[in-house]
Formats: sequence, structure tokens, C-alpha cells
Amino acid sequence: MVYAYNNKPGVPGFMMVCAYNNKLSVPGFIMIYAYNNKPGVPGFIIVCAYNNKPGVPGFIMDVVLTSGCSDALHQIISVLANPGQNCLIPKPGFSLYETVARSIGVDVKRYELLPNKDWEVNIEHMESQIDDNTTFIIVNDPSNPCGSVYSREHLLQILKVAEKHKLPIVSDEIYASFVFPGERYYNLAGLTSEVPILSCSSISKRYFCPGWRFGWIIIHDRNNVFEKEVRGALVRLSQRVVRTNSLIQSAIKSILEDTPQDFLASIIEAVAKNAHHMYREMCKIPGLQPVMPRAAMYMMIGIEIDKFPDFKDDIEFIKKMISDQSVLCLPGQCFKYPNFFRVVLTVPQSDITEACTRIADFCKKYYVA
Amino acid sequence: MVYAYNNKPGVPGFMMVCAYNNKLSVPGFIMIYAYNNKPGVPGFIIVCAYNNKPGVPGFIMDVVLTSGCSDALHQIISVLANPGQNCLIPKPGFSLYETVARSIGVDVKRYELLPNKDWEVNIEHMESQIDDNTTFIIVNDPSNPCGSVYSREHLLQILKVAEKHKLPIVSDEIYASFVFPGERYYNLAGLTSEVPILSCSSISKRYFCPGWRFGWIIIHDRNNVFEKEVRGALVRLSQRVVRTNSLIQSAIKSILEDTPQDFLASIIEAVAKNAHHMYREMCKIPGLQPVMPRAAMYMMIGIEIDKFPDFKDDIEFIKKMISDQSVLCLPGQCFKYPNFFRVVLTVPQSDITEACTRIADFCKKYYVA
Repeated sequence: MVYAYNNKPGVPGFMMVCAYNNKLSVPGFIMIYAYNNKPGVPGFIIVCAYNNKPGVPGFIMDVVLTSGCSDALHQIISVLANPGQNCLIPKPGFSLYETVARSIGVDVKRYELLPNKDWEVNIEHMESQIDDNTTFIIVNDPSNPCGSVYSREHLLQILKVAEKHKLPIVSDEIYASFVFPGERYYNLAGLTSEVPILSCSSISKRYFCPGWRFGWIIIHDRNNVFEKEVRGALVRLSQRVVRTNSLIQSAIKSILEDTPQDFLASIIEAVAKNAHHMYREMCKIPGLQPVMPRAAMYMMIGIEIDKFPDFKDDIEFIKKMISDQSVLCLPGQCFKYPNFFRVVLTVPQSDITEACTRIADFCKKYYVA
Repeated sequence: MVYAYNNKPGVPGFMMVCAYNNKLSVPGFIMIYAYNNKPGVPGFIIVCAYNNKPGVPGFIMDVVLTSGCSDALHQIISVLANPGQNCLIPKPGFSLYETVARSIGVDVKRYELLPNKDWEVNIEHMESQIDDNTTFIIVNDPSNPCGSVYSREHLLQILKVAEKHKLPIVSDEIYASFVFPGERYYNLAGLTSEVPILSCSSISKRYFCPGWRFGWIIIHDRNNVFEKEVRGALVRLSQRVVRTNSLIQSAIKSILEDTPQDFLASIIEAVAKNAHHMYREMCKIPGLQPVMPRAAMYMMIGIEIDKFPDFKDDIEFIKKMISDQSVLCLPGQCFKYPNFFRVVLTVPQSDITEACTRIADFCKKYYVA
């Protein structure tokens, strides 16, 4: 007699049979993965292999599978901070960091990114935000919404701050492989032997499958800083309610290994082309100040709001652009960055062209020199 | 220009194009579902239809999609109780109730089920457990680990307690459709117009796909008791981190509507046959007292532990049975019910026969009259 879900390697020769695993038209192994979310099991090995790339020294990495990158962030924030403590997040930055943190009583403090320096971190400002209650720093490189990707030197500056204040870094690497031709991405964990890092990612952006809910946390911890509490807490939290989908787990090896590289490259190239086209066109529009991205799927565009007296701010601007032109962008305030808007670049080129025309028409109508 | 994930009906004619939704070999609509986890969208309609069966009056039901039934329970418990409050759970009962509740600071109190009355609730005992801090009652019918299914009359008794003390019921209905031939399942929400009920379930047990992580919460609330706080909290919580997998959502209509009924019936019949066979054989073994199930996938078997002086309790008994006979069952203590063990019935009949022989040999060896 067996407990259906304990059908796992390592338990010696007991009867591992489960009618609906082995007898029906459902592939047996799929179910096994789902409840064996542990080091040593294929899902983990694959993800490790995928991340264990040149540049990342071969130190031991533990991996926790999650239901997408947002679930990874939720688990990490739950583990690294107690209610009343705070973490540092970028501004502009992905809104989920604050949503998740505040929902569990963790405060956020924002460090500035500099639009005129390709969205690099204002290092002084970052350091000034650290207080006695700060427990970790979230770094999002490449960035949503900025489309920036940091140089090795800049990442070393960030690491220096973390090391000085003994703060771990949460590295949101969801766009890690999505850098434009000619740009280079450096894995943060590969640049430090001191700062413990929890990196998180998923397949959704790299393999164009949002909603598949397959992500992971990688524990980079050469000095066993996380050994005592964090590592165990992450494992326990990931097992409290199992969330990784077994279907995707069974396909993950093929997704990671069999997706043609030129297919992936062609997508990035198309997005980069869109970015260049959009940037050129936006530069021509009086009242707009685009910042050219180098990675990811987005572009931030500044609005000289005083030149558009009909609108109080980016939200009014965007609302009117929807109703006038049926063009929808996200206002910068979604990222705590007023008087910018974010454009998504993953559309067909013809739509980029059309969108540029409409945005130009819109701005022309409301711009006052 | 569009925000990729806002590609939804209802927003008038703006440019809804997203390169990786519409242009690549990935079915476009899949991605849309994932981020449209809201009433009115197909996933919801389907689940509503599935649950809106004879016996359940046609009142409005809101549905929240979740990552399996355990995620549903997690969300429900988070919403219905604050730290320091408590909920009532069955004993014996599924261990996740306590795991989830305690992890968020919610206490549990246990009401007794009666093995000599087909695991009906000891109603008096249930009522005695209610105190000023009790916020809801979890009912699991059909039951894991008991395999019981309650009569209409008994469910009305439970509802009476809830109504008297103005407590909502959380109805774990994961085995709702899995009742043995000749038995009948009554949907709790169909039997009351007074008690607000949050029912939860998933496809895993009914359609034999554990690990696919597709479940739901149905809000049964005729008197708008949940209107002010609970309903909104559930929606917000389900949107904080999206967890329902888009692949399964896109397949759910087919899973629910196209799975041949005789296939499902044949599985239940096979499990029922296993149950009868196992029960007959266990009845013959001195020192064991099986309780015949009427539903679900399990049987509880009592151990007259004083007749097995080599073992202190069910855990020692089970450990030895694994090492002696390679037969693994879960000890009753997993369900807070010592000196029982739980058998899983979803194995091929030949394995049931083999397991019965081994259990008999084991008991014969250690039994002392």
C-alpha cells in the first residue's frame, strides 16, 4: 500500500504504484515532480544548469521552484524581512515589490535611478536610504520599466554598498537573457564572493510564455550567511503550499534546451529594432524625452508636462491619449515616476509605426510651446 | 502602443497586439486568461457551470481561481481569520488545515469525528469547541483521510451549529464527485439559505491530475455577509500574485466537458472495488479494525495497539511495516488520530491483494492475543 504522493526515489523498494500515475493516459512522472520540489530532482538540476553559465563561478547553488517570478519575490520578501522592517527598491520600479512587501507589513524605501545616466542607480542616494531597519536591497537588472542593463563596474558599485552595510541583495533577473544586440548582461552573483544573493527569474519573459507560472529562486551564498535561517525558511515556505505546475516542470528541460537560439535571438532583434524606431520617432516629438533602452521590452518616455497645459500629470495625459487615439501606455506613476510613460516594445513593427504616428498627432494637438 | 497584458475585451478598439501573443507559435489566448482572473471571463464561467448542478439553487456564485485546492485554503484562511483567532477543523483531518492556519498565526481547535458512526461529526463536541475567537468551521466532505460522505440530515445538523453561532463554513469539496456507487453526495451550500459558505476544490482528484495546480473558491453568500470585507479581500489576494496556470485554464473547458463520464465512473468503481476487497481482508486480521469508506481514495484502519506490544504507537507500527514488508501507509498521527493508519486505495487491484497479504503477515508476526 502506498501513499500516492510519496512515490519517490530514495525510499527503498516499497510498492510504488498509483493507479492514476501509472495506469492511465497521464504520464506518470509528471505527478512525481510536483511533490518533489527538492534539490537533486530534475527540475532543480535543469534550472541550476541553466543559470550556471560562464561568468557565474561554479559554487553550489540551491534552487527553489516557484509559481513564476512574482511568487518567488513573495517568498523571498516573506523570508528576509519581518513586519516593521524595510527593504530598498528602485524608483522607477516594478510595482509588485511594494504590493507584496506592504501586504505582509514590510515597508519599502526607494533609491533613485538616473534617466540621464541610462537609469543607473544614484549610489549616494541608495546608501542614504539605508537605516537600521533595512534588511535587503532589490536590484532589477535588466529593468522593467527602464529597459536598462548595468555595466560590470556599476554592479560592483552596488555590491560595494551592500557589502559595506551587510545587506543581502534580491536580484530580479527576469529579463536576464533579454539584452539587445551589442549589449552585455552580467550576473550579479558572479561578481561577488561576499554579498549573499537571492536571485529570481522565470521562463515567462525569456521564452514568451507569461501565465505558465514557472519560476525559481537561486540561493547564492558562499559564506553560509543564509544557512541558519533563510535557506530553511525558503524550503519550508515553498513546501507549505506546492505551487509549481507539474506539466511545465515536465516540459522545462525541453523548453530550456531545445528552443532554437536563433528563434530567441530573432525576437530580441525585433524588439531592439522596435526600440530604435520608436526612439527615433519619439525624439522628433516636441514635449517628449525618450530614454533609449538597452534590454528588456520597454521604453520610458519623459513628458515635459508644463508644455501640455491641458494635463495635470502623466495619468491625465495617458487617459486622454487612450480616448483620443486608442493608444494605451502605462503612466509613470505606476512605477512611482510621475510625468513619464512606459511603452511596450513587443508588438509588430507596423504597430510601432502606427503608434508613433498617433502619439505624434496627440502631442502636436496639446503641445504649447 | 499597448501594455501587453491588458489585451482584454471591454477596452474599446485600442491596438491589442502583442508580438508574442499573436505572432509566434504560442496560442494567443492562453496568455490573456492568465491575467484576467475575473468574473465574466471563460475560466470563471466554466467553473461556475461545473458547480452549478442540481441541488445547488441557482443563486449568484462568485469564483476565485487558485493554484489548486491548497492555495484556495491558504487564501480563505488568510481572509477569514486574524492572528490570534481560531478555526475548527476535523479530527482526524487533512494536515494542511493546521499547517496553513498556524503559519499565519491562526489557531486551530479540533472537533471529533466518530469512527463507529461512519466518521460523522460529534456535533456536541463541535459545538463545545466554539469560543469567542472562533471565526469559521472547516468541513471536509467527502473526507481525507476517512473516506466518509455525509447524509443530508447530518449536513443539516452541522449547518445548524454554524447558523446558531453565526460562523461561516469553509467546505473542502475536493472529493465532491468521488463517491462510491450507491452513495450520494450533497453539496453543503445547496442545503442552506442562511450560512455563508466558501467552498473550495480543484481538478486534481476528480480528473486524476495532481500537480496541475488548478483550483477555485466559490463564494456562496445569499445574504451578503461577505459583501463588505471577505469578497473584496479574496479578489485582492488572488490578484496580488497571479498563480493560476494559463495552460490549464485554456484546457479547463475540455477537461470538464469532454472527459468521458464512463471513464470517471470506471475509476471510482475500481477504487470502490479495492475498498471492499481491502475491507474484507483487513476485517480478518486480528488486531486491526478497518472502517469501510464510502467515498474518496482512502481507508482508515484502527490498530489495537496494546495487542502489538513491540510498538509504542502507530508510528512505530508503520515504520516497522515499511522495513519488514515494504508497505508504506501514513500513520494516523499525520491526521492527529493516533493508533490508526491510512491506506490509499488508488492502486491496481493486484497490489491491493499483495498489500493485504503483507499486512496480514506483518500483523500475525507481532500480534499478541
